[in-house]
Amino acid sequence: MSHAIINGAIVPESEAKVLISDLSIQRGYGIFDYFRARAGEPVFLEDHLDRFYHSATVMRLTPDVDRSRLKQLLKELIEINGAPHAGVRITLTGGYSENGYTPATPNLLITLAPYHYDPTSFDKGIQLVTNDFQRQLPEVKTIDYLQAIYLQPYIREHHADDVLYHQNGSIRECPRANFWAVTENGDLITPADRILKGVTRKKILTMRDLRPQEAQLPLSALVTAREAFITSTTKIVTPVLKIDGRPVGNGKPGPIAAEIYRRLIGMRGGHE
Amino acid sequence: MSHAIINGAIVPESEAKVLISDLSIQRGYGIFDYFRARAGEPVFLEDHLDRFYHSATVMRLTPDVDRSRLKQLLKELIEINGAPHAGVRITLTGGYSENGYTPATPNLLITLAPYHYDPTSFDKGIQLVTNDFQRQLPEVKTIDYLQAIYLQPYIREHHADDVLYHQNGSIRECPRANFWAVTENGDLITPADRILKGVTRKKILTMRDLRPQEAQLPLSALVTAREAFITSTTKIVTPVLKIDGRPVGNGKPGPIAAEIYRRLIGMRGGHE
Repeated sequence: MSHAIINGAIVPESEAKVLISDLSIQRGYGIFDYFRARAGEPVFLEDHLDRFYHSATVMRLTPDVDRSRLKQLLKELIEINGAPHAGVRITLTGGYSENGYTPATPNLLITLAPYHYDPTSFDKGIQLVTNDFQRQLPEVKTIDYLQAIYLQPYIREHHADDVLYHQNGSIRECPRANFWAVTENGDLITPADRILKGVTRKKILTMRDLRPQEAQLPLSALVTAREAFITSTTKIVTPVLKIDGRPVGNGKPGPIAAEIYRRLIGMRGGHE
Repeated sequence: MSHAIINGAIVPESEAKVLISDLSIQRGYGIFDYFRARAGEPVFLEDHLDRFYHSATVMRLTPDVDRSRLKQLLKELIEINGAPHAGVRITLTGGYSENGYTPATPNLLITLAPYHYDPTSFDKGIQLVTNDFQRQLPEVKTIDYLQAIYLQPYIREHHADDVLYHQNGSIRECPRANFWAVTENGDLITPADRILKGVTRKKILTMRDLRPQEAQLPLSALVTAREAFITSTTKIVTPVLKIDGRPVGNGKPGPIAAEIYRRLIGMRGGHE
């Protein structure tokens, strides 16, 4: 992708820089959101912007562009990059802090990246390894992925594809995806709180005939669960075939995951 | 301060920038260390560099300058800025990640800032408000201060100067300082683990005649404690007069804090 936007100005990516006094670099303070553009149109844009402005408010960061201007900037960037199909990231940082601690006027960064989805992902599924960890400010999409990146070797050592966070046995989320299980009774459950509430998760919660529930979900429920899967903008629905080396259900992608996947592909505007 | 160093190159501060693909901005991934320069000489430099390289190793970030080259860069920056008295910060970020997630060649940033110490700080003391929070990767000096900055209004609302983290009642640390108490029995205690181990704390642990102990320290011990104080490069020793609005001891700076303060000023090369 050739260009990015910094505080409303379109700049070549090779010049897309911020001063090192920015509070993201100094103190890890910033938020972002990420979504897909398809045929030039951001997918589920209103949901993502709702969350972006919510994250900003909680962190007391005030973007100096309003929603309609932000949409215009997104459109311009997609056009100038000639990238109708892309992953779009909007980042809002703590800004150039005078004392290196107190947030200042935020810097707004918009970048595009190629968006890849491998259509064999659903059938392949993934394996997870668990880790007792509670994200700080969990309902805010902060830039904090310290633990997730730190755990990369741990994930590889356990022959897993990603980590599943839990707190004292109560399941939370993956670093970049929500978690779902179909229990032995057939209940479709996703953890209720202390997580980042994904836009894909939100869409699934509208599928009322499937009776999705937001509830406590203990790790112990996985022993007898029929299915487990994760959901996100990038992963759509990806079945979890093993957790901590133990198969979930029959160790294959399940019918509820497949049905949700089919519906989401429809809602997202057709297959990739 | 007029200049900074980025990856070995001296640049004017107004041009001290990194690309927004840096993993500190994208994922909050980076470490740093901070120390004082006095009369052109960094104070306790070896201790700080030990910790800096340790933090880098744990985070799998490999600075491409070795220790002697780093010392040379520090010297050059202090000279070019004409700043024999300054706070020095060395930051090592996750670098320009190809996929926005996997650490790359780190960026090494060195900056100077004015170092202020108000000599009336000791007598004034501070007030703390408690918060149940455990820092992630606590023994690494990461750039993660999300919770600390998020809590700034909470601190002000409680008429406090800073926050004291504890986990289920077990005292940890302040965001930028270690915590100490003198218990009702006269024991001098600082929390043993799950904290960042400060260089000032390390110096105090060498004052064997004062019998400093690294141990569990419950919040409940503060009710009957004779003294409490925090220690750091910036705060030296600052008495804690109230915690959650309740006076510690007689609510005045105590004799153990005063003695440690006196000795540290000596070790640091005289009063500020």
